Amino acid sequence: MCDDLVIIPKATLGRLPLYLRVLNGLHHLNIQFVSSEEMAMKLGITSSQLRKDLSYFGGQGIRGTGYDVAYLLGKIKAILGVSQNWQMAIVGLGKLGTALARYPGLQQHGINVAALFDIDEAKIGWKVGELSICHLSELTEKKKELGLEIAALTVPAQAAQEVTDLIVEAGIQGIWNFAPVRLETPENVIVQYEDLVVGVLTLSHLLSRRLGKMR
Amino acid sequence: MCDDLVIIPKATLGRLPLYLRVLNGLHHLNIQFVSSEEMAMKLGITSSQLRKDLSYFGGQGIRGTGYDVAYLLGKIKAILGVSQNWQMAIVGLGKLGTALARYPGLQQHGINVAALFDIDEAKIGWKVGELSICHLSELTEKKKELGLEIAALTVPAQAAQEVTDLIVEAGIQGIWNFAPVRLETPENVIVQYEDLVVGVLTLSHLLSRRLGKMR
Repeated sequence: MCDDLVIIPKATLGRLPLYLRVLNGLHHLNIQFVSSEEMAMKLGITSSQLRKDLSYFGGQGIRGTGYDVAYLLGKIKAILGVSQNWQMAIVGLGKLGTALARYPGLQQHGINVAALFDIDEAKIGWKVGELSICHLSELTEKKKELGLEIAALTVPAQAAQEVTDLIVEAGIQGIWNFAPVRLETPENVIVQYEDLVVGVLTLSHLLSRRLGKMR
Repeated sequence: MCDDLVIIPKATLGRLPLYLRVLNGLHHLNIQFVSSEEMAMKLGITSSQLRKDLSYFGGQGIRGTGYDVAYLLGKIKAILGVSQNWQMAIVGLGKLGTALARYPGLQQHGINVAALFDIDEAKIGWKVGELSICHLSELTEKKKELGLEIAALTVPAQAAQEVTDLIVEAGIQGIWNFAPVRLETPENVIVQYEDLVVGVLTLSHLLSRRLGKMR
């Protein structure tokens, strides 16, 4: 659908999964319309911010009635690609990779964990959930067999670039990088950097303001 | 320092740790000045966005010279509370909690993992790194002893509210929540929701645009 091909600011995009969650909740409660004030309150943002965000993809509230929950839900799902399915590999089955393989939110959002890779011989063949851990040397073959499109990179920082090169060589164009390093990739590859520290720094920033804990 | 008490938009705040990383890298290379264009390129944002972000905390580039790396670094660290130290507990030592306990980025950013809690008797007394896992019933006592200010919540969704109540009761005012549920907390408690799905949905959104994978 061409009208989904809108340019949406990254900050707005970052809020969409939260919108999705709130709207899903309302939908399950059989609520058909929601006001921007009510939704903004649930999200902890201002209603003007919310209206601005929703305007990017044609969400228009009806005066006195509010936003159509099912309509917004469909729009946001389409934009986030939730109505699509993505085949994801996890590369590096340490604690974080294993936690990710078991993270229930992924499947719910159309991200299908389809293969697991490591280079540690002691791990090869072990199962996490339904999936066996394969050797990284099988990546290209498995990519073709399973149609892998995204690789979550959960390896130590010092191995990250080398493994990235293998992922790129295998033809995977989306890398979800948890290793705390910048990666060199060709232009056709998209890297999403996941930095767990951002959340706690945001929290500590808000806490310092609240507690007046300044130097 | 009172001038750190500025109101900074959340989206800007979200980018600060990234700025911190880039500036740190430049600082280690003994680079004294950086242009907004160069820094924006490294960050994958526009230079006008960058200049706007930096303007919130008084970062002013010098025409023809650029931004003072050490000055910006100091400012951003102060805002993010990096020059402070925070004592954090991790509650729930499953795969994710254990990965978090070992995550090297935390200490680097002034977040000190000071205590680990679980309710699984089989885990009590085991060590992750230097720290032993304590029973959750010791939370209030340890909070006082160690000055715990933040609790990372890495328990299953169905246990999250009950454990949150205990955290609040112990007097901890900052909760970094990884459980995929909204938490009920008193007004004096700040909850930061960590949703791992956001990153991969952002990636899949960009990939669908790139690959033209639309329904």
